Amino acid sequence: MGVAHSSCALSSSAAIGSSSFTPPSPTYPCPSQLKPKLDSSVCFSGLSRTTQLRPTRLSSTLALQPPWCGAVGMETQETEFSLAPLSGVHGIDQELIETMLYDALVWSSLHGLVVGDRNSQRSGRTPGVGMVHAPFALLPMSFPESYWRQACELAPIFNELVDRVSLDGKFLQDSLSRTKKVDAFTSKLLDIHSKMLQMGKKEEIRLGLHRSDYMLDEQTKLLLQIELNTISSSFPGLSILVTELHRSLLHHYGENLGLDSKNVPHNSAVNQFAEALAKAWTEYNSPRSVVMIIVQTEERNMYDQHWLFHVLKEKHNVKAIRKTLAEVDALGELTPDGRLLVGGQEISVIYFRAGYTPNDYPSDSEWRARLLIEQSMAIKCPSISYHLTGTKKIQQELAKPSVLERFLDNKEDIAKVRKCFAGLWSLDDPEIIQKAIENPKLFVMKPQREGGGNNIYDEDVRQNLLRIQEEGTEDAAAYILMQRIFPKVSPTFLIRDGICHKDRAISELGVYGAYLRNKEKVIVNEQSGYLMRTKVSSSNEGGVAAGFAVLDSIYLT
Amino acid sequence: MGVAHSSCALSSSAAIGSSSFTPPSPTYPCPSQLKPKLDSSVCFSGLSRTTQLRPTRLSSTLALQPPWCGAVGMETQETEFSLAPLSGVHGIDQELIETMLYDALVWSSLHGLVVGDRNSQRSGRTPGVGMVHAPFALLPMSFPESYWRQACELAPIFNELVDRVSLDGKFLQDSLSRTKKVDAFTSKLLDIHSKMLQMGKKEEIRLGLHRSDYMLDEQTKLLLQIELNTISSSFPGLSILVTELHRSLLHHYGENLGLDSKNVPHNSAVNQFAEALAKAWTEYNSPRSVVMIIVQTEERNMYDQHWLFHVLKEKHNVKAIRKTLAEVDALGELTPDGRLLVGGQEISVIYFRAGYTPNDYPSDSEWRARLLIEQSMAIKCPSISYHLTGTKKIQQELAKPSVLERFLDNKEDIAKVRKCFAGLWSLDDPEIIQKAIENPKLFVMKPQREGGGNNIYDEDVRQNLLRIQEEGTEDAAAYILMQRIFPKVSPTFLIRDGICHKDRAISELGVYGAYLRNKEKVIVNEQSGYLMRTKVSSSNEGGVAAGFAVLDSIYLT
Repeated sequence: MGVAHSSCALSSSAAIGSSSFTPPSPTYPCPSQLKPKLDSSVCFSGLSRTTQLRPTRLSSTLALQPPWCGAVGMETQETEFSLAPLSGVHGIDQELIETMLYDALVWSSLHGLVVGDRNSQRSGRTPGVGMVHAPFALLPMSFPESYWRQACELAPIFNELVDRVSLDGKFLQDSLSRTKKVDAFTSKLLDIHSKMLQMGKKEEIRLGLHRSDYMLDEQTKLLLQIELNTISSSFPGLSILVTELHRSLLHHYGENLGLDSKNVPHNSAVNQFAEALAKAWTEYNSPRSVVMIIVQTEERNMYDQHWLFHVLKEKHNVKAIRKTLAEVDALGELTPDGRLLVGGQEISVIYFRAGYTPNDYPSDSEWRARLLIEQSMAIKCPSISYHLTGTKKIQQELAKPSVLERFLDNKEDIAKVRKCFAGLWSLDDPEIIQKAIENPKLFVMKPQREGGGNNIYDEDVRQNLLRIQEEGTEDAAAYILMQRIFPKVSPTFLIRDGICHKDRAISELGVYGAYLRNKEKVIVNEQSGYLMRTKVSSSNEGGVAAGFAVLDSIYLT
Repeated sequence: MGVAHSSCALSSSAAIGSSSFTPPSPTYPCPSQLKPKLDSSVCFSGLSRTTQLRPTRLSSTLALQPPWCGAVGMETQETEFSLAPLSGVHGIDQELIETMLYDALVWSSLHGLVVGDRNSQRSGRTPGVGMVHAPFALLPMSFPESYWRQACELAPIFNELVDRVSLDGKFLQDSLSRTKKVDAFTSKLLDIHSKMLQMGKKEEIRLGLHRSDYMLDEQTKLLLQIELNTISSSFPGLSILVTELHRSLLHHYGENLGLDSKNVPHNSAVNQFAEALAKAWTEYNSPRSVVMIIVQTEERNMYDQHWLFHVLKEKHNVKAIRKTLAEVDALGELTPDGRLLVGGQEISVIYFRAGYTPNDYPSDSEWRARLLIEQSMAIKCPSISYHLTGTKKIQQELAKPSVLERFLDNKEDIAKVRKCFAGLWSLDDPEIIQKAIENPKLFVMKPQREGGGNNIYDEDVRQNLLRIQEEGTEDAAAYILMQRIFPKVSPTFLIRDGICHKDRAISELGVYGAYLRNKEKVIVNEQSGYLMRTKVSSSNEGGVAAGFAVLDSIYLT
């Protein structure tokens, strides 16, 4: 959800940002040396709208500030902010770093802040073997409190927006009709959606466990949405551990650093997600039923998932089973009244940690399972409608003028949502195409299809646009152009495989949202913790970032 | 401490039982098929005493029951007991086993029940990398409550006994004078001890963190002590996790198994050890001082240690540093008033998780460090006297008639201690030698020297005794003969490297004890949690057990 989403982002693709920890191979650096070339005082008028909104002052000096500048609470947002992890990061005593590093590694091991080691063959299948600490930043990243509050406030609004959009089947089908032609994956999802529409299938109990990702744009001083995950929002389990790790480190060493652990906001993502799942289970109202997690065959990020279901079991006494889509196809059946049985066990809630990428559907078997699930009366997290609502194309549609107004009533809410949208255009606007050819560094070309990780930057933007202009191919429909976001690059200590790397890094804030409603009323609609991810920013201006992402938390300033 | 200690035991050597998890290579099977050859109703009169006490009815049908049979609470101990993990272990549903196995592996990973993987090169040095779940038994081992209470009651008595013996420098020196000639390691320890005696050095604040290990002997129906560790008592951290793991599994699956999690006694070993360390730190009374852990260069069982110092830091706000003996030699110094500084930092308490085996002293450097530590006013856990009190030879001396009476006042306490001593003899008793040659299966030959793992069983006992008789060598002083203990062999599920092995196993109960006193009074003297270890019992009667040990807990019956 949320239009656009440039992507000088860390792993903003669904495949990466959602479930796997390894960054996608072709992500891109946000070299800080680009910044001097841009005038941060100018304004990107109307660029967060779609092609219908023509930029009025687009020139070689691009206006990066959107038209609503100053309209909604810009006073706070225009205050100088810094993403530096610590003002004195260069000055920290080496011995202190080493002590904190050792303590942090120990803390991670004792508290289950772990992932499967990619060097271990069995680590993606068997829990308890081949474990290594999850990559993490040694210290929390500074984050201005006003932006933090803004991101938190947006969570329940996005929850509601997803729910409203999901109910408009015609809007989803119409908006995605062109995408359907160029993207087989979305096409298959749409087929299932169509069948449900034909059947008149209604999801009366709806559960959403979302994560909206943002970056702070140095140019516009705006919190801009990168993407909103409506399926497989990852790291609710590990994110709270990194928060606790940082609070513990600052509790013990904060005095030496001039930092106070109280400024790291509490994080209860996994508890709130587990509670929402438990409440959904209760709504379904079948005491012997279980929750089913749809998983990939191999999953090195399994401990993040295990944390969620550990809390669900220990705190709420709700049991869960793990199945691949292929297993659901093999073992699943519907009772005459629409209940889903898998291996004879009734499933009340289905939580997807797979199924968001074409790779998860290697055969018809997986598609049959997805259809079976959708046909059942089990609560899906997400339903096919929620899933489609999170596609890039729908995000683009929602950014068109007056579209948000079709789904949200509250004008303040609409303004808040619109304010975090970055610029986004389709390739049928010749004027934008021309500007992008002239200033490719200010745009990102993104393929419409899911899976991500194939974004195009810099000179490649120019070359691709020239080719499309010349050939007049159908390819134009397969891409969108997006405003490029320039987050601040800061020196950071990134820990991976027990080794501390000091490097220049950028950060992305994810805010979780949980939503549950039944036929009568909304039961849960809340912001549910957060995830900070920090990624090495390559200094190779024209190249592709080889850097890696780590889990982080925030230090409010 | 505690005489004797036969050793059909799992890793009863200091090197193994204390700190490392891998069982010693030459341990021995307790084949259950041997049992029919023994008459469990007969009595091993006086055999728990030393050579001075001549067995009265020793014949080809050996009397396995000690002379105090029936004297002290034998009513309860003679009731039938079972070490079977579950009465219906064979009948457990395979699917339930697999579910519990998966859950247990997840639980271990999330809760820091981990060790360094021996397949990972860095796992012994760098925390957070190359982790694997600690080997564990899937279910707790049955243990009769009366024996459990007996073992718990013994803990504070052994604590006091160690303290009293440690104060009698002449007793230690005299008792170990022969050992000194055949064992270079003990000799070096004695040299340091002599120097302290000459200096008139007194340890006014004394801290002991002990673990007394027992087995239930099927023949005598007695709880018999295997050994008492006065240095580097390992697994206070991981043992409580296994207890919690078992309680969690029984909470969720106990109903299917007919087991109640309430029957697994709570375990707070790590909390009590941390509290004792914190109180020692307080007694030393120097707020800026830290605790120092003496560690080996490589330690795959580091997380057990980390748990202890994590609790010390988080709960008691006492910091600790980790140093090898070589590092202490390089960085350590004494102030004129006897304070120990290491790298300029004052050390209040020294906790040894290394230094118990000759391997930990590869050069003079380590011995210099040990001497430096001993000369300092820091609180040693253990002091050289406590360390020596835990040697096999002292255990043997204490088992001689009237020796316990020199150190303990309370007659009931003396009786309780004596009751758990197994039979132990030196090789200068021709009658016992003859009996052992005739019935080698009922004895174990143990070398006096520390390090263990070189025990001699069965036909090898006969061959070695015959050789010693013939050659009349000095070797006789290097060995002791011990009553062999026959613990019950039970089918058990042992989990290692994510794989569940169903095998025949024997178990050993370790009960922790914490003791702290200053010049005026005893501050802590308590039983401090427990450790159950279960080990595969090879069915190869004449061979050496290739089995492995796992962490376990107990199920009171």
